[in-house]
Amino acid sequence: MLEFVLFGAGRIGSIHGRNVAAHPQARIRYVVDVNQQFAAQLAAELGATVTSVEEALADPAVNAVIIASSTDTHADLIEASAKAGKAIFCEKPVDLDLERARSCETIVNAAGVPCSLGFNRRYDPSFRALQQAMSNGKIGNLEQVIITSRDPSPPPVSYIKVSGGLFRDMMIHDLDIARWLLGEEPVEVFATASNLVDPAIGAAGDVDSAMVTLKTASGRMCQISNSRRAVYGYDQRIEVFGSQGMLQAGNHTPTTVTFAGEPGVVSDKPLHFFLERYADAYRNELQDFVDAIVSGSTPLTGIRDGIRALELAEACIASLETGKAVKL
Amino acid sequence: MLEFVLFGAGRIGSIHGRNVAAHPQARIRYVVDVNQQFAAQLAAELGATVTSVEEALADPAVNAVIIASSTDTHADLIEASAKAGKAIFCEKPVDLDLERARSCETIVNAAGVPCSLGFNRRYDPSFRALQQAMSNGKIGNLEQVIITSRDPSPPPVSYIKVSGGLFRDMMIHDLDIARWLLGEEPVEVFATASNLVDPAIGAAGDVDSAMVTLKTASGRMCQISNSRRAVYGYDQRIEVFGSQGMLQAGNHTPTTVTFAGEPGVVSDKPLHFFLERYADAYRNELQDFVDAIVSGSTPLTGIRDGIRALELAEACIASLETGKAVKL
Amino acid sequence: MLEFVLFGAGRIGSIHGRNVAAHPQARIRYVVDVNQQFAAQLAAELGATVTSVEEALADPAVNAVIIASSTDTHADLIEASAKAGKAIFCEKPVDLDLERARSCETIVNAAGVPCSLGFNRRYDPSFRALQQAMSNGKIGNLEQVIITSRDPSPPPVSYIKVSGGLFRDMMIHDLDIARWLLGEEPVEVFATASNLVDPAIGAAGDVDSAMVTLKTASGRMCQISNSRRAVYGYDQRIEVFGSQGMLQAGNHTPTTVTFAGEPGVVSDKPLHFFLERYADAYRNELQDFVDAIVSGSTPLTGIRDGIRALELAEACIASLETGKAVKL
Amino acid sequence: MLEFVLFGAGRIGSIHGRNVAAHPQARIRYVVDVNQQFAAQLAAELGATVTSVEEALADPAVNAVIIASSTDTHADLIEASAKAGKAIFCEKPVDLDLERARSCETIVNAAGVPCSLGFNRRYDPSFRALQQAMSNGKIGNLEQVIITSRDPSPPPVSYIKVSGGLFRDMMIHDLDIARWLLGEEPVEVFATASNLVDPAIGAAGDVDSAMVTLKTASGRMCQISNSRRAVYGYDQRIEVFGSQGMLQAGNHTPTTVTFAGEPGVVSDKPLHFFLERYADAYRNELQDFVDAIVSGSTPLTGIRDGIRALELAEACIASLETGKAVKL
Repeated sequence: MLEFVLFGAGRIGSIHGRNVAAHPQARIRYVVDVNQQFAAQLAAELGATVTSVEEALADPAVNAVIIASSTDTHADLIEASAKAGKAIFCEKPVDLDLERARSCETIVNAAGVPCSLGFNRRYDPSFRALQQAMSNGKIGNLEQVIITSRDPSPPPVSYIKVSGGLFRDMMIHDLDIARWLLGEEPVEVFATASNLVDPAIGAAGDVDSAMVTLKTASGRMCQISNSRRAVYGYDQRIEVFGSQGMLQAGNHTPTTVTFAGEPGVVSDKPLHFFLERYADAYRNELQDFVDAIVSGSTPLTGIRDGIRALELAEACIASLETGKAVKL
Repeated sequence: MLEFVLFGAGRIGSIHGRNVAAHPQARIRYVVDVNQQFAAQLAAELGATVTSVEEALADPAVNAVIIASSTDTHADLIEASAKAGKAIFCEKPVDLDLERARSCETIVNAAGVPCSLGFNRRYDPSFRALQQAMSNGKIGNLEQVIITSRDPSPPPVSYIKVSGGLFRDMMIHDLDIARWLLGEEPVEVFATASNLVDPAIGAAGDVDSAMVTLKTASGRMCQISNSRRAVYGYDQRIEVFGSQGMLQAGNHTPTTVTFAGEPGVVSDKPLHFFLERYADAYRNELQDFVDAIVSGSTPLTGIRDGIRALELAEACIASLETGKAVKL
Repeated sequence: MLEFVLFGAGRIGSIHGRNVAAHPQARIRYVVDVNQQFAAQLAAELGATVTSVEEALADPAVNAVIIASSTDTHADLIEASAKAGKAIFCEKPVDLDLERARSCETIVNAAGVPCSLGFNRRYDPSFRALQQAMSNGKIGNLEQVIITSRDPSPPPVSYIKVSGGLFRDMMIHDLDIARWLLGEEPVEVFATASNLVDPAIGAAGDVDSAMVTLKTASGRMCQISNSRRAVYGYDQRIEVFGSQGMLQAGNHTPTTVTFAGEPGVVSDKPLHFFLERYADAYRNELQDFVDAIVSGSTPLTGIRDGIRALELAEACIASLETGKAVKL
Repeated sequence: MLEFVLFGAGRIGSIHGRNVAAHPQARIRYVVDVNQQFAAQLAAELGATVTSVEEALADPAVNAVIIASSTDTHADLIEASAKAGKAIFCEKPVDLDLERARSCETIVNAAGVPCSLGFNRRYDPSFRALQQAMSNGKIGNLEQVIITSRDPSPPPVSYIKVSGGLFRDMMIHDLDIARWLLGEEPVEVFATASNLVDPAIGAAGDVDSAMVTLKTASGRMCQISNSRRAVYGYDQRIEVFGSQGMLQAGNHTPTTVTFAGEPGVVSDKPLHFFLERYADAYRNELQDFVDAIVSGSTPLTGIRDGIRALELAEACIASLETGKAVKL
């Protein structure tokens, strides 16, 4: 049985904690959160103990950590966990500062511990099946990737202010998916963006709607579109196009029921948000991490991916500021 | 924590056992199976103990039983469990003999224990959403129900021989769904059937393809079609039609990926068979049973439903033999 | 250039008249209608002359007739046209009386003229593609056919009274499609029906909702469902199921636009009624008739098909009255 | 009856010629083509006379011209027709040279004749329904437009060489659709492109795959993707996204037939190419032009639209060369 520490007892921490509790090979030994009440409540549910970062990492029985605390704690926890020799699963991002993220990577590599980064979408059954079909040559040579990612509604402005902005916080997921699907590193990035959804987001210095274009050395291209609001639910779609055809992964719905009546033929809206859409992905992600610990396999998403995606987010911001395609 | 006995450690027993093990309010205390090896293996996985029917039912700590053993044991186990005052969840059918099933019902009612019958399809999220939308008046007055139910491939003839035949074994599920959706008891049943899939099924005296028509007193009508083989997977669809429109529940698929290429636009086949399609239904079914035990609610499917569906299956068989619509 | 007489200048006559006018090899020479105003108006539009039945059929320049007048005139016009040696296209039915229809057939056969019967649905591009794919072995051995046919709204009761009733007027189309798809003559017919849509239809002695089951000698089965009202539009679907898979032909819509918003994901209702849905079918039907005249090919639908479908409609009525499957 | 001259008896000229011939208010009086054989053949089919540009335009009975000849003749024919006072329908582009196109516009405006430009896609029933739903406020405030346009296979390199290149020849359609849907003029254009489909296209100095981003003054954004090859057929889709939801217009298919079998659930490929997909659009386009002549309405697409789209194509080319977003 693998013993886990869970850093962060909030919404996403609870998801990971419950998945570990339901996993036949793993359990949560400790829960750590600055909010003692949250920590105590989740620990009770999971049969775990509340403790501090230091004590948790000092326990030699602990095999692995899950970092699901606030973004500004990620780098410190990664470094401390790596130095303590624990396998690391960290929610994205590594850090909002690229230099700091890179120094984390150095420490993780030096420690030689597995480090999986929470780019959950790669673990989604539909996206994964699309990527595997493409890898198996289903569409011949890949030429174009089109990624749609829209949240059902914008987060509070208080969150926007500490989020690092749309590119580092939201589009980073799509930039990771783009890299994964393109099969080559982007060498050119162009971004444009607007404040269309909520004026308060603009007042906070951020954008809420964005379109990005990537290009690789061999000429493959990718378009990404983002919006902080979609009234019909979480819109998460991928299209890959190549010399032998196209693969598309559509939204997931709660049911397959359709109603035909006066207003037309009506089917379900997409699953509401990431907790619903990516419920399976979170389970697959944990399994991938457990496999990495147990069998030494390389996690599907590592700290390097976190840094690459952050570099692309930085390039988007630079492109937005200069009106030019940024070369990488 | 509710303590369960699991009778039957085969395929469907394992499903129920694991769902109980994952349920926060319930656990498997005992596993009973004539195959001691199966029993021991599943008990180990679930943290349960292998025992006999008698000892399990004699334990006052036991709250409930799950009967997932072979059909010919159902009636005995229902009766013994009812007399021991345990809440009962039983896979369909109650018994292949209608009289015996009715005497089970008498004993269950006398014992006053909750008794839930495993008509899993009513718990499927899509079918349930369809039924609830209809109940909420979405299609006005219901007029027609059309049910499609096709298995991916026929069972072995050894199973066919003890199954009670297509109507009692397979169509019984559709007959239950028909009753549930029609909202009125059928008063007229017509059946026709053929042996088209596997000559060995015909040689065993059974049919493998069937079409049934039901009618209620108010004139509502229902068509059911069954086949023991569908090369594209488990085909489970419902259509209800009324004065204000139509609701359809389609098949479920592993992913939402489509491929557009030379052969056309290709999407996933339906989920392979009942274990995949009804995975959520089995979880919902358990929750409904737990609710019945804990809060005294009436299970969505009870022993009465098992008997009614069996009566309809018998009427189908009589119709097939006489070439007439059978009045009920 | 083929010279046509058009009998009947109403709704369906106008459709056929305009299709002839637009056909490069044919023109309408005469229009005949008891309503002189209708006749004059349509004749003017088509560049034709208004005349009487007798004069039209006496003109040796006339190659063909289209019979789109009221049902009670069909048999007389078929017989007169056959005797005049004209190629005949007749809207269904031949006649509501089976004996009279059979005597028409005798006269047509004796005259040796092409005679095409207006079972328009066989000419629908989707239904035809389905039938051809099946004929090409796409689903292996056919086992089950499921036909859905629902009108958007019931006709006036005045029409119901002269229509011959739902089975001879409406379901006759589906019975023809069933014969065409089954590839074998039905040997057993069961019908049930209700008056659910409009009490005035019941008061007129007819039904408005019906379900029929057909079976062939080799055991193939077919289910048909009919309703005189579907608030979401003309519902015309076919499903054929066999040893190697299933083919389905769905409804046609005005556009491919979908809206995703608060109420769900909404797509178009089916095309409103037969004039819209079968616009292409009427053109294909004319082409098939022209081919029969010009090249001597056998029309896809002939007078024999009209009689067979009427026999099945009569069998439905007998089954409804007796509660038994009628053997043919 | 309106009298038309048809300039150009090739593929697209034949389409327009036949649509005029089938129109109740219009006919082709003259056909003009440098290829006398093509001209004679089409004229015979349409009941028209072969003549020269000069004689055709000199005939006072002529009301309108259709310019469907090679691109390098468009400007001359527009100017001559305008000066002769004829209503003009011209296939895109006005001219590959922007200055020449602008001087055409001056002459057309001075002559005061209706001038409709053949941006056929605006007349497609699905695209038009999407645009009208959006205009009616269906999605609230428009924020994002995503346009997919892929040809089934690349044209011969001989055509590529005189086409003006992908942006002026192919994407110009999408740029027009973008302007139409955005409801505001783009103020910023970014383009990237590759030679992925056919090396011969690259050798001819052109690209065959492109992605473009547009932005308007209010911050609305648009992504366009183009490819010269899609093995599954002509891929023509539009998505518009706004504060109240999303509208999507999908591909059109020959039938609604689906096959469920071993390889999955297979539906039709999109209609093969523009002649099939836009058959209805060409008819609607002609009706719009006839309306403009008869009732003085403004055509949905005018010479101004041709010039604006060309300006955007030029901006794409400039952006591709500089790696910067081009301001307009």
